[in-house]
Amino acid sequence: MDVLIEAVPNFSEGRRPAVVDAIVTAMLTPGVRLLDRSSDADHNRSVVTVVGPPAAVVEGLLAAARVAAQHIDLRTQRGVHPRLGATDVVPLIPIRNCTLDECVTWANVLGKRIGDELGLPVYLYEAAATRPERRNLAMIRQGEYEALCREIGNPERQPDYGPVRVGPAGAVVVGARPFLIAYNVYLHSGDVTIAKHIARAIRERDGGLPAVRALGLLVAGQAQVSMNLVDFRRTPLHVVVEAIRAEAARLGVGVAHSELIGMIPQEVLFEAAAHYLNLADFSSERVLEVAIAKTAKMIDE
Amino acid sequence: MDVLIEAVPNFSEGRRPAVVDAIVTAMLTPGVRLLDRSSDADHNRSVVTVVGPPAAVVEGLLAAARVAAQHIDLRTQRGVHPRLGATDVVPLIPIRNCTLDECVTWANVLGKRIGDELGLPVYLYEAAATRPERRNLAMIRQGEYEALCREIGNPERQPDYGPVRVGPAGAVVVGARPFLIAYNVYLHSGDVTIAKHIARAIRERDGGLPAVRALGLLVAGQAQVSMNLVDFRRTPLHVVVEAIRAEAARLGVGVAHSELIGMIPQEVLFEAAAHYLNLADFSSERVLEVAIAKTAKMIDE
Repeated sequence: MDVLIEAVPNFSEGRRPAVVDAIVTAMLTPGVRLLDRSSDADHNRSVVTVVGPPAAVVEGLLAAARVAAQHIDLRTQRGVHPRLGATDVVPLIPIRNCTLDECVTWANVLGKRIGDELGLPVYLYEAAATRPERRNLAMIRQGEYEALCREIGNPERQPDYGPVRVGPAGAVVVGARPFLIAYNVYLHSGDVTIAKHIARAIRERDGGLPAVRALGLLVAGQAQVSMNLVDFRRTPLHVVVEAIRAEAARLGVGVAHSELIGMIPQEVLFEAAAHYLNLADFSSERVLEVAIAKTAKMIDE
Repeated sequence: MDVLIEAVPNFSEGRRPAVVDAIVTAMLTPGVRLLDRSSDADHNRSVVTVVGPPAAVVEGLLAAARVAAQHIDLRTQRGVHPRLGATDVVPLIPIRNCTLDECVTWANVLGKRIGDELGLPVYLYEAAATRPERRNLAMIRQGEYEALCREIGNPERQPDYGPVRVGPAGAVVVGARPFLIAYNVYLHSGDVTIAKHIARAIRERDGGLPAVRALGLLVAGQAQVSMNLVDFRRTPLHVVVEAIRAEAARLGVGVAHSELIGMIPQEVLFEAAAHYLNLADFSSERVLEVAIAKTAKMIDE
């Protein structure tokens, strides 16, 4: 049975293509596949998306972190985006035949090896966090590299793995989280207060839908509800969209188009389709490509 | 680039499991994968669903037709379902990186080989038909095996491949067609005339939606619109469902649940979800599993 996880490591280098190339090349150990990469010069940061079997992904990430530590010096690195280290943050995400808890285990495997083999301090975050205040990445990264250099000796800054000492490559934040869907709904309105109102009505923070984060924005003159669905199994996408439609209708505003940022798991679209088609007893095994992939696997194994 | 076709051969044997097993085993040549098989004793018929690269599927079907011809004698075979031969009908269906026209070519390759190597008369049907009246399977099968024995010498019964002579294994009908979606919508009504009315309003035959076949039925006391979507790219599933909802609303009847028979291509559900979510600029490349499968292929090749 093939187990797949995704990793979306962020590196504090977005200006020297040769360095980013070297990092990505190191990451692509056998079994690790590149889904996406993007670099931003203003942020001076690169985000890489890979998938593969957990052990292979961990091996690739360790090799990539080694290369990043060799080439990125936080003492001189500058960019708009906050950062703590050369390899700044590494979330592991369960994709196939894998639980979030198993990704927490792999985050610990990776964190320990970065600490032991690369000699870098490592902090665990989100589902892998060892203290409640470390679940939140922004809290760990507070004051960035410069503050960490001064404060790493403080008890609250004690790393989860690696030395209590900050070198030029800084620290690495490693964690596990569910797959995140970034999704925006545009309104037939130029009034950002309506988008803000709807965002408040639907987001978990203000008593709305579980695992939904939302903001009201004005994008090119159009009101937009911008969202992260941090656990699409707890609150499916179509439930969120219907909640927005209902709230918008209550406010007398029409809903325009939606926009997906990044990727979406097939299951989310299958379930939305089954919901709207009112398709009883649907299972993804009824999907031709899923059934074909399953027989392919039976032959391979 | 992997090319996949589906074949759904029907064999005139549904009572002797050992014979069906031998047929299926012969069909599973390297590369051919079994998706489904079912046998019906009343119909005295078995339907097998396989997928694979076209050349492998053709090889498997030829081997299966040979075994079927050895074990099934139409002179004594009896069942509820009409039949012309031991291997009664073989539709080839494009699945991946393959057009319907290419399936027509493969139907000709298979038909010629069944004619030449197994010495059976072969008729081409649906998209592979060589005469308009042979597009329709029911027309080719008229009078069944018994009539064909008497009439094969008539010009209108001239086979497309193989001898002008009927043996105990009868004739084989080979063809190509698009993937077919079998889909039923139940109404909140026990009145079959409403289902019949809606079926007439939406089906192609009566000026409705292209590539939609529909019947109004009464199933366990509930009115049902029973459909075959014979080309889901011409008329997508969600367009049909919305047409039924609109017509039902016009008649003052509510739509209950829907029901999928057999399999459905993922693209149909992706498009339905994108439609109902009002998702602009959606492409299946944004689906995580599709993107992963694509990178897997790049590595394999």
